[in-house]
Amino acid sequence: MSQQNGFNVAVVGATGAVGQQMIQTLVKEKFPIKKLTLLSSSRSAGKIVIVNGEEHTVLEAKPESFEGVDIALFSAGGNVSKELAPEAVKRGAIVVDNTSAFRMDPETPLVVPEVNEGDLHLHNGIIANPNCSTIQMVVALEPIRKHFGLKKVIVSTYQAVSGAGASAIEELMEQTKSILNNEAVEPKILPVKSDNNHYQIAFNAIPQIDKFQENGYTYEEMKMINETKKIMHIPKLQVSATCVRLPVAVSHSESVYFEIEADDVSANDIKALLKDAPGVILQDDPENQIYPMPANCVGSNDVFVGRIRNDLDEKRGFHMWVVSDNLLKGAAWNSVQIAERLVKLGLVGERE
Amino acid sequence: MSQQNGFNVAVVGATGAVGQQMIQTLVKEKFPIKKLTLLSSSRSAGKIVIVNGEEHTVLEAKPESFEGVDIALFSAGGNVSKELAPEAVKRGAIVVDNTSAFRMDPETPLVVPEVNEGDLHLHNGIIANPNCSTIQMVVALEPIRKHFGLKKVIVSTYQAVSGAGASAIEELMEQTKSILNNEAVEPKILPVKSDNNHYQIAFNAIPQIDKFQENGYTYEEMKMINETKKIMHIPKLQVSATCVRLPVAVSHSESVYFEIEADDVSANDIKALLKDAPGVILQDDPENQIYPMPANCVGSNDVFVGRIRNDLDEKRGFHMWVVSDNLLKGAAWNSVQIAERLVKLGLVGERE
Repeated sequence: MSQQNGFNVAVVGATGAVGQQMIQTLVKEKFPIKKLTLLSSSRSAGKIVIVNGEEHTVLEAKPESFEGVDIALFSAGGNVSKELAPEAVKRGAIVVDNTSAFRMDPETPLVVPEVNEGDLHLHNGIIANPNCSTIQMVVALEPIRKHFGLKKVIVSTYQAVSGAGASAIEELMEQTKSILNNEAVEPKILPVKSDNNHYQIAFNAIPQIDKFQENGYTYEEMKMINETKKIMHIPKLQVSATCVRLPVAVSHSESVYFEIEADDVSANDIKALLKDAPGVILQDDPENQIYPMPANCVGSNDVFVGRIRNDLDEKRGFHMWVVSDNLLKGAAWNSVQIAERLVKLGLVGERE
Repeated sequence: MSQQNGFNVAVVGATGAVGQQMIQTLVKEKFPIKKLTLLSSSRSAGKIVIVNGEEHTVLEAKPESFEGVDIALFSAGGNVSKELAPEAVKRGAIVVDNTSAFRMDPETPLVVPEVNEGDLHLHNGIIANPNCSTIQMVVALEPIRKHFGLKKVIVSTYQAVSGAGASAIEELMEQTKSILNNEAVEPKILPVKSDNNHYQIAFNAIPQIDKFQENGYTYEEMKMINETKKIMHIPKLQVSATCVRLPVAVSHSESVYFEIEADDVSANDIKALLKDAPGVILQDDPENQIYPMPANCVGSNDVFVGRIRNDLDEKRGFHMWVVSDNLLKGAAWNSVQIAERLVKLGLVGERE
């Protein structure tokens, strides 16, 4: 996985659920890599990862690891990003950070290329990759905002366990087996590993993703609220969210209610718009029972939208159902896509 | 299961998921039964059902089956109700119908005892039991409407497969096993047995419950919209719904956004109200990760409410999370509860 011309790329958190997808996505998208460096915490260092048939040893991420690195994709937790992203920048790398560490920092652009690619120009070395559930929603909302204005959003999410990492997928699968065998289960990971209580996710739904804030919202919900306003550049946008974890391995779904500013817009107008929107696949044919479902979206970079219909009371109100692979568009693909755009925009220099 | 004084009770659809729960609920609630008659379609007739240790043979439901019956609980599909409920009424029975056959008939009361018990007085022999997802929502909303007025409701549901019958529970379990064993699955029941396409429910979410209408909403969504207005006696209430099926066996969950009419109401005011509301159990302590979850609500007659919080933009807007056993409060218990209230209100005569 290297070529003469290209970029020195580091993946930080290379053994995690998202890190693994980042590596696969770099390969799949044929990102021009001169040298690939896989980094992790000391715990996972020394592991061997096969990339395109080549063995790579995962190294412990340290400040010096970023010497000579052009692009560093971070997905090893907020604390690692806070400590090492500035070190990478200091050494000349441009960082695409998939954690929440810098997302709300006013100096750091928070970017979904289909929505606010232009913000890449404002970077100070770090570009933040938004929260997974935010990304897929703004990809679907942006064409609507652009054409009809956007006033209010109320979203209820149906989120996959992979958002909580590979160990949460394992917990779902093992727990499901145990319940089918009438064995007792002892939840250890979900909803939040570091919280006091852990609950059964198999055949259940948990209305908590990330920790609770004092205002009764979870951090996941606040991420959707704050990040949406920042990415779409509408500080006054009314956004509210309820985030729920489901017994689904991969792909988040969202029931999104939104109010636009324009009058006399029909559901068909919205459908026509989304049919040609970047990054969106319209799957909306109720008569033939065609709508997006998480099981069908795994492995795709796109955001799938369906069930678009007018609210029956509010003429400017609409409902839609938005599904996407949370590890790809929600994380790895959006990060790699940012890296691709940085290259295209000439914001990172190629090595020869 | 009989006593000297009491009522002749018939259960129509006695072998179905709800019918079975109706029988168990009659026993559990010690409903005063003089004679219990179990009825079904010809397909299930002849089956033996054990009730309180006594064998009962299920008989084919025919017009004559209702001779001498005081109270008939119907849950055998809309067509059976349309055909046989009037026959039961003609023979002096009072019918509590759990199908959608008469729900929107202006002459038929649609009753959730905690909300509109008074409507029982207006019956013409038939009382309709609302849709499961509607019942739990209005139980939580009614105290709010009563004290603060209610203007608008937007609900996204997280519904269990048991709402589609016992065969859907079996499909979920068998399909889950197959997927864990890497075997191919062939969905046959969900989302709607009589529709053309059937989709995987295990580790998935299906945004279709019941068939689609021309306006892009499903019948399930329209039931929530229309029934809520009728039960709460607010024809102008703005209600919208998105109904989604989950890989959960029993208990529906709902993410409910609502706007009240009163000013200066806090989330704590709503919590205080619901803490003492009939049929409601408040489980709302985010700091200690206490909120309702479907796995914990199975087997309870109550409606569990948590995650109550103010919308961050709309002062009169709130969010809550409502969970209840769809086979009990959503069906069997609400029906038996209606029968109990009919007795208490003297609307059905006791046999001696």
